Amino acid sequence: MDLNADLGEGFGIWRLGDDDALLDLVTSANVACGFHGGDPSTMRRVCAAAADRGVAIGAQVGYRDLAGFGRRRIEYAFTELRDEVTYQLGALDAFCRLFRTQVRYLKPHGALYHAAAVDESQAAALVAAVSGYDDQLPILCAPGSKLAQLAVGAGLRVVAEGFADRGYLSNGSLVPRTALGALVTDPEEVAARAVRMATERTVVAVDGTVIPCAVGSICLHGDTPGAVASAALVRAALLDAGVTPKPFV
Amino acid sequence: MDLNADLGEGFGIWRLGDDDALLDLVTSANVACGFHGGDPSTMRRVCAAAADRGVAIGAQVGYRDLAGFGRRRIEYAFTELRDEVTYQLGALDAFCRLFRTQVRYLKPHGALYHAAAVDESQAAALVAAVSGYDDQLPILCAPGSKLAQLAVGAGLRVVAEGFADRGYLSNGSLVPRTALGALVTDPEEVAARAVRMATERTVVAVDGTVIPCAVGSICLHGDTPGAVASAALVRAALLDAGVTPKPFV
Amino acid sequence: MDLNADLGEGFGIWRLGDDDALLDLVTSANVACGFHGGDPSTMRRVCAAAADRGVAIGAQVGYRDLAGFGRRRIEYAFTELRDEVTYQLGALDAFCRLFRTQVRYLKPHGALYHAAAVDESQAAALVAAVSGYDDQLPILCAPGSKLAQLAVGAGLRVVAEGFADRGYLSNGSLVPRTALGALVTDPEEVAARAVRMATERTVVAVDGTVIPCAVGSICLHGDTPGAVASAALVRAALLDAGVTPKPFV
Amino acid sequence: MDLNADLGEGFGIWRLGDDDALLDLVTSANVACGFHGGDPSTMRRVCAAAADRGVAIGAQVGYRDLAGFGRRRIEYAFTELRDEVTYQLGALDAFCRLFRTQVRYLKPHGALYHAAAVDESQAAALVAAVSGYDDQLPILCAPGSKLAQLAVGAGLRVVAEGFADRGYLSNGSLVPRTALGALVTDPEEVAARAVRMATERTVVAVDGTVIPCAVGSICLHGDTPGAVASAALVRAALLDAGVTPKPFV
Repeated sequence: MDLNADLGEGFGIWRLGDDDALLDLVTSANVACGFHGGDPSTMRRVCAAAADRGVAIGAQVGYRDLAGFGRRRIEYAFTELRDEVTYQLGALDAFCRLFRTQVRYLKPHGALYHAAAVDESQAAALVAAVSGYDDQLPILCAPGSKLAQLAVGAGLRVVAEGFADRGYLSNGSLVPRTALGALVTDPEEVAARAVRMATERTVVAVDGTVIPCAVGSICLHGDTPGAVASAALVRAALLDAGVTPKPFV
Repeated sequence: MDLNADLGEGFGIWRLGDDDALLDLVTSANVACGFHGGDPSTMRRVCAAAADRGVAIGAQVGYRDLAGFGRRRIEYAFTELRDEVTYQLGALDAFCRLFRTQVRYLKPHGALYHAAAVDESQAAALVAAVSGYDDQLPILCAPGSKLAQLAVGAGLRVVAEGFADRGYLSNGSLVPRTALGALVTDPEEVAARAVRMATERTVVAVDGTVIPCAVGSICLHGDTPGAVASAALVRAALLDAGVTPKPFV
Repeated sequence: MDLNADLGEGFGIWRLGDDDALLDLVTSANVACGFHGGDPSTMRRVCAAAADRGVAIGAQVGYRDLAGFGRRRIEYAFTELRDEVTYQLGALDAFCRLFRTQVRYLKPHGALYHAAAVDESQAAALVAAVSGYDDQLPILCAPGSKLAQLAVGAGLRVVAEGFADRGYLSNGSLVPRTALGALVTDPEEVAARAVRMATERTVVAVDGTVIPCAVGSICLHGDTPGAVASAALVRAALLDAGVTPKPFV
Repeated sequence: MDLNADLGEGFGIWRLGDDDALLDLVTSANVACGFHGGDPSTMRRVCAAAADRGVAIGAQVGYRDLAGFGRRRIEYAFTELRDEVTYQLGALDAFCRLFRTQVRYLKPHGALYHAAAVDESQAAALVAAVSGYDDQLPILCAPGSKLAQLAVGAGLRVVAEGFADRGYLSNGSLVPRTALGALVTDPEEVAARAVRMATERTVVAVDGTVIPCAVGSICLHGDTPGAVASAALVRAALLDAGVTPKPFV
């Protein structure tokens, strides 16, 4: 099982999250590429540290929106989005190259992640960018999303990700953030759910039913208080259960 | 002899210069990489057109300064500038890749061009960026500049450029823009100077002396009225003189 | 009748439209405030010229999106949009103050114009910004829009604008841009429609019916070929018909 | 004696310093205006809190350089800098207006602060911006600086600021940051120096001599570990010495 987290999301003087601590826990680093966060020197530093630890580097591409941290939906034209994603892929690859590695996958950030899950044009723009740049590059995204469908249709590899700290409905989708049971806050429970995802490929839905959850990566969050400690618990629990985290690529 | 020009310097809705006309005249395209000008869709379009015509694509890297078009000197720290240049190199390479080519050289833009001619730290940052990214990449710059010296010292290839529409002092440097004789405005004279540079490797200085001018590329300007017509005249005059323009790489 | 046009929409080195020509034709200048276009020196120049000619200055506020020229819908939070609009109002007022005038009205730009016509939250953000900043400031917008409704409800003055170069449906709304009859391209016809709007307060809809069109301002476009000439014809036709264009404020 | 500090220097999701804690200690808030840091919602929040506490609001204007936090010297043209400063003044005033106050002074930030201390053109641009916008607005800056000279010459009020946590040479200038004695790190000593500045209008230079230090405001830093505690100690020590901090305007 792979563990992924968002990294390098500071900008200039401003920091966000604890990159170094997370890099010791994850096997895949979703590195911000400068559009929603992440400046070139931060990208270089994170790539160096990731390469040094054998952590796979993925392009965490986002909208061009520093002020909104890429969390505001923007109605891009297909070509504009495709080209901005291509730009970000190349920029990150330049830093990977310095450390004898390369971008290993793409994961959309924030509002782009959510838009690409349902919006045909934005999903297609991501698929076009990856297909044009490197059609061997997997896309890390939500299972069942529009992005996953189009990527598979275009012959790209898709890796589904699961969230051990989010509630699931019995149909396999996430409990909406505004509904009861959206978040699992007890670190022990989060860890137990991660172990279940990794070993049994199931999750317990909010109604108590056990449903399939065949994911290739579990997403760890790093930007809330206690997040790093919780992520460490997930990793430890997986190891205890005999699961050695390793990159999906 | 190579002919180079700045291209792709619009941004979003805003256009600058006549990219298509210049692409029919030059053999090397200095493509803006998004920091002083140039958006991803423009970069893609220019790369496609350049690749289609066999025009070599170079990274025209600049300061992060859209509002000032990269023409205001900025006192970057070495690492920041090195990393921003690396970022731009990778971003442009992504678009080259789409058209089965690659970045073939680097040329600094505007205030960075001038700073790197005299400032050790900024020149070193450019050299470090190129050395780290691809040490086979030539740097197109002013002969005798600090950048040229450091690049040669680091084992990089340097290509000197000349300006057929600028006056030269007898010591080989350009006449300052504020001094008499800084600009050569007569298109016929510009063309004749280009031919002399290409065939005799000399230029007539403002004091009338003929001085050596061993350049590997002549820079054509495209952003002033009549610029494209003047550039066309240079190309035609070279062909008349038996010089076929071709990329230096 | 008032004539309004978008002005000062260049940015840095990049120009857009012919500000000087339009300033001789309009009575209200929608000045870009730096978020979708417009830099401080351009704002100052346009304010100076407008004040000099007795043209009313309005704040043409937009999304924070230079790369998309404010034409991409962005899903702002209410408070973020309200505060970004407040910021733009103040910035423009600083330049008005230099020329002993002030911001006289607000008109949203591009995607914000369209969003505020239908989206309750974005319309409310504009209303909140104006109410907080200066509740005597009119809002120039589409008649019947959500923005117009909320503004009236909040006690603000609303000025409806008409488009002499756009087709109208018999229900009073504009013919969608993708449908037949969306644009009126014959300058003579545009001018005749402007005169009808100003004198009879009606417009001929695409189905031939004459419908009411009680607008306080007619919008002139300046960013297409022939636009300035067409705008000049509108102004001349109004004068011929005994209508002297003057600001609505 | 006035106590000033830099506030509102976050941007979007990114935070910097503890605005709320500092607002309980200072009498003047240098509020970032969006160019080097500070977004509109942060500006609004800080203005509301400052107005609520009776803290004077000053425009902390900076270069247009989010990536460099306004700490990189930029060679602006006089008009560009003047206009960008005017823009920032107006933007901040819009938020002051919401809370029935106004911008009470201007203080340049970072590299602009340092440039304006020695560079005639940049200092003149600040003076021109203030003179044009509101010639009753004081400028808070370093005593003896080029900015102070030009401002006085233009009839503006200048308020000199002192640094209780910085070493002084016997000629009254600050010990350069790279030299021994540049920083005073013991909070008790910092507080004692502040009291001396406020009551005796002197400071002990690094060579032990007591020199005049007639300042109208003491700058408190808030962005380093322990900074808020140290600032609190300064305030407490002043009160103990019978000095009630109050705004200089």
